[in-house]
This record gives sequence, structure tokens and C-alpha cells, in this order.
Amino acid sequence: MPCTGYRRADSSWHYLGKGPVISESSAPRTVRELGEFALIERINARRVQAPAVLLGPGDDAALVAAPDGRFVVTTDMLVEGRHFRRDWSSPREIGRKAIAQNAADVVAMGAAPTAFVVALGCPAETPVEVVDELADGMWAEAARAGGSIAGGDLVRSPELVVSVTAFGDLRGKAPVTRAGARVGDTVAVAGRLGWSAAGLAALTASADAEEFAEALAAHRVPQPPYEAVLGSSWRAGHSLTDVSDGLLADLGHIAEASGVGIDLDAAALRDPALDALARRLDADAAQWILAGGEDHAFAGTWPSGAELPEGWRAIGRVTAGSGVTVDGARHEGGNGWESFRGADSASGPDPR
Amino acid sequence: MPCTGYRRADSSWHYLGKGPVISESSAPRTVRELGEFALIERINARRVQAPAVLLGPGDDAALVAAPDGRFVVTTDMLVEGRHFRRDWSSPREIGRKAIAQNAADVVAMGAAPTAFVVALGCPAETPVEVVDELADGMWAEAARAGGSIAGGDLVRSPELVVSVTAFGDLRGKAPVTRAGARVGDTVAVAGRLGWSAAGLAALTASADAEEFAEALAAHRVPQPPYEAVLGSSWRAGHSLTDVSDGLLADLGHIAEASGVGIDLDAAALRDPALDALARRLDADAAQWILAGGEDHAFAGTWPSGAELPEGWRAIGRVTAGSGVTVDGARHEGGNGWESFRGADSASGPDPR
Repeated sequence: MPCTGYRRADSSWHYLGKGPVISESSAPRTVRELGEFALIERINARRVQAPAVLLGPGDDAALVAAPDGRFVVTTDMLVEGRHFRRDWSSPREIGRKAIAQNAADVVAMGAAPTAFVVALGCPAETPVEVVDELADGMWAEAARAGGSIAGGDLVRSPELVVSVTAFGDLRGKAPVTRAGARVGDTVAVAGRLGWSAAGLAALTASADAEEFAEALAAHRVPQPPYEAVLGSSWRAGHSLTDVSDGLLADLGHIAEASGVGIDLDAAALRDPALDALARRLDADAAQWILAGGEDHAFAGTWPSGAELPEGWRAIGRVTAGSGVTVDGARHEGGNGWESFRGADSASGPDPR
Repeated sequence: MPCTGYRRADSSWHYLGKGPVISESSAPRTVRELGEFALIERINARRVQAPAVLLGPGDDAALVAAPDGRFVVTTDMLVEGRHFRRDWSSPREIGRKAIAQNAADVVAMGAAPTAFVVALGCPAETPVEVVDELADGMWAEAARAGGSIAGGDLVRSPELVVSVTAFGDLRGKAPVTRAGARVGDTVAVAGRLGWSAAGLAALTASADAEEFAEALAAHRVPQPPYEAVLGSSWRAGHSLTDVSDGLLADLGHIAEASGVGIDLDAAALRDPALDALARRLDADAAQWILAGGEDHAFAGTWPSGAELPEGWRAIGRVTAGSGVTVDGARHEGGNGWESFRGADSASGPDPR
């Protein structure tokens, strides 16, 4: 479709914000043709930095505000074929997901995201539009989380690699770690569980896209409920984490760090809409909820009887034991994501 | 050599600091066998964090001090086959280089490195010792720069990918950017130029390792002269950068950002020891000095007549023109590194 092709090249050059409109044949189409420095300039053009970014891209380093004299920092790397597939997710979705999962880690400390830096590796033959759309997705999610992209690096690599580092501001408060849970605490979550896993199962099974639209969207772009921690009703409890590896695995980290056990209430975790989807795939919704990661819900513990902040629901209780149980019993089946499971030659994200 | 093998497995388990000594056959030899969480625990065991790291690895995010309410941040990704070769550099050297090039960017803003985070991608079949040695190299260079590794991520990828983000403290001073050079300024450098390029040329030509030992070492582990900026004699001039892409390219960034030209004095840049090495390879030492990057020397400009800080030497002058010249003329030949040059299938670092 030459018309579509032309429009893309045309709008790309307008996006660059300089030079005349260039005909399709001469517009750079790949990262190699445009070159590193021009591409960096292009993806940073017309961006408005968040207030915390005192000095943005264009020098040896950026400068970011840390109002209370400390900053929260986390980093996550996404590798094509392992953490995403180009035939399953658009560049924009991959960009949003990369930022969302890092922002969720910042928020899971009780901090407000301020800025991100991104190291991006891609083959030289990558179409420039792919990098544009990745950047657009990153900027959109960074804005949703309250920050912006303060800088980055762009290098050549055999497959797409997106490495994000995220920063946050505790606003003078203590970080809420995984180590503070106490026996008797109420365990609560904010956000959805199991929907990303349902979407991954639907992709793996080539299930009906319309029927699974919500699950597919949840897998492609997790929507961490940032406001459940950053909103005005927030009051920190004893511990906090985000659900990235799977509920059992992530609560297991709280249990281990705090030296306690956790018992979950299966009834409180049930999701009738997921049950319906699971029946269509002959799958187990409980497994998606308990062991599916990547929804980036938040999980934490509060003193028994404390009123939970808005958006949080109780799902269990901290016990004097160790490990995580469901209705008093160990869960049968996997607990969640582990990076080095499966074969190196796996052609797509590990379906666990 | 079973004896060596046994000793390695044995010391590894002692290093883990728990459990009995396990016989060679059952000690995990690969990242897959050890698993993500155990490997993270292993590479973080017995490490002493720098004072700025308020909360280190083990939670959703780390917490780092930013005493003056701001922090400098930079990120750089190194990809196997592109930025290093496993048959040319040891894991320890790769780790040191990854930290050094990021620390140099922090110092090039006039800031003291405080902490680093590292996202590491590697194949599941990577020997555990490779990751151990990478981590040891990173920790060694982080300490040399004045910081420590506050956290990271460990994922599976088809080749080794090391993505470092570095932080620094300006100690209440203004950042020294690329944009402040003024006409008449003296251009000066601290550190060596062209030695990393000489080492790369020696590796490419399979030159005599003894004769080129110093150049090979410079290529494998750049030694940015951090103290030239962080030492007591330091007084900031008008602009500052590090030489990562090549002297002409990096001074070109200063010239462009400052809206000035720069003229270099060829005689001041000569290095007789490099001339001797270049003759052995039928190469041009001037090209190594002017276009070879990766030495991570520092370059900056000071008001004419100002006394230079210790470790700095004058190499040219800021002019009213644009671009960078040598003895008044444009340099013939390449200016330095560009990420997307050459073929995607290149099996080693681009010899430029």
C-alpha cells in the first residue's frame, strides 16, 4: 500500500519537525539509514519533561530532582522472544509494558514515579517507525505514572532489548518494604490478578480475539493501579510489593523477608469472569490468579482491623508459619515466573 | 582438570555461605541449574554497599541518597559481539568496562559516583562462574569510582547483555555540561587517548600480546581518570565531557551544544609510544587518538589563561567557527563510533 507507506514517511518527517517533506524513496526507513544520533534526536523531539527532570537528554548524563534527599530506583530488562513477541504485541504496547512494570516497582515502595531512563538495543534494520512507536508507548505510560523519560542509550543488538530504570520520590515517608509484615495482619491486593496470564494463554492457544479482548489487552499492556498507592486515601500498612512473578511467589517474598507465613482465602480471590474464560480454554482460573504474574497488581499487609485504603480488598491473613498457603493448604502447581526455566531456544514468552 | 573443577565448585558453595560442601557432580554449573533467585542471592552475598545506598538489593526497589536534593543519572548498554567479545575479554574485564564507561559519564557532569544498578541478560547455559566474575569486576570498578551496585535485574537472553545505570552526587555544585564552552577557551584533556583503539587494532590483527600488552589492557578495561575531576585540585571550567565516541566526535558535541568551533593542536596530541605501536601495525596513531573512543578520558574547556586542574593538559582552543579542526583543517577519516554502522552480522566489535 504505497499510500500508507507514503503517509508514514511523510508524518515521520513532520514529527522530526525540520526540513522539507521528503518523498517516500529518500526518507530513512531503518535505524541504520537514520543513524544513532539523528534517531535519538528524533525520539526526543517535542517531548515535555516532567517537573522532576532538571536536565534531560543531550549531555553525558541527566539530572533529576530528589526532593527529600533520597530516591527510589529499580531496573528491569525486557528481551524480544522472552518477555514479548513482536507478532503478539505492537511496539507501542511493548513500550508501555516496559515502563509500567518498572513504575509498579517504584510504587510498590510507596514512592511516586518521577523519571525513567531507557537503554534500547535493536537490529540496524529495524524500521524507524518501530522505535518511534516504542518511544511513544513509553512516554504515554511514563506520563500515566507521573514521570517522563529523562535520557537513555541506543545500541545495536541482534534482537530488541529494552532496559528501563525507574526513579521515585518517597515524599519524606519511609519506604514500605517486603520485610514488615506481622502475624495477624490482613493481606490485601489492589488491581486485577490472573488477567495477563489469561491473555498469554489465549495467545498461546490462538483463542478468539474478541472473546478474550480484555485478557489480551491486560497481557499486552498491564495497568498497575498506581492511584491505589499514590491516591489521597493511601495509608501505608506494614509491607507492600507488586505482583510481577505471581501472587504466591510475590507474597512468598513478603513471607520470607518478614519471617512469617501467609494464608490466602480462595473465595476472596475468585473472579467469575476469569472462570468463564478458563472454561473456554479448559484451563484453571485459580492457577492464573495464584501463579500468573505481570498484572502488576499491588499486594500488602495492614494491621488487623485497620481500614484499607480505597481500591484495596482483603484476600488473606499473615500467620505465624512460613510460606504461602491457600485455605490452609500448599497450592499444587507452579508458583510463578522464574527467568531461566525452559529451553534457550524458546520462540516466545514462557507460558509457564 | 578435575582438581580445578572441584575447587571451583567447592569455593562456589562456600561463597554461597550456606549448606554443606557439595561434590563436583551436584554443584550447579549453569545459570539454569542455579536459578534466578539463588543466583541473585549469590552475587549479592558478602557485598558491602557504599554509604549512599540506604537500601540495597532484595526488595521491589533500592533507595539511594541524594544529599543535595538532585542526582545525576546515565545509562549504557553493552551487547556481546557488538561492544565486547568473550574471546577477547574476560567476564571480569567486561564487568569493569561496563561500570567504568557509566561512571565516566557521571564524572563528566562534575558529579561523584554514588551507586549503580545493573540489568543483566544471559543464556540459561551460561556457567555460574561467568556471572560471578562479571559481578566481581563490576563491584571492583564501582568501588574504584566511589560507589556500589545497589540492585539489578537478571533475565534470559540469547547473548550476554549488560545494561548499567549510574548515579552521581553534584555536592551542591552546578552540573558541568557540554553547552558552556566560550570562544577563546583553552581545550584540555585528562587521561589517555587512542590506547583503547590501539588495543582493538592489535586484537583485530592478532598482534603480539606482549608488545601490545598496555594497549590491550586499555581496551579491555578503560581507566577513566576519575580523580582528575573528583580530586582536590578540581575547578570546573566552562564545559566538560568524556571521550567515549572519539575525541573529534565528543568535542564536536561540545562545539555543537555551545555554538562554537574547536581547533586542536596536533603536536599537543602526539603520543610517541602510540606512534611506535602504530608503525608495527602499519596504522595511523593520529587516527586512534582523534577518532578512537572508549578510553574514557575527560575533555573540557577553561577560560583562557586559567590554571588547569592537576592531571589536565591543553590540546587546543575554542574558536568562533563550528565543528572541530586539527591545526586549522578538517580531519580526513572517520570521526568516531556510531552505533548502527557496519553489518548486523558483524561477529565482533566494529573496528571502525
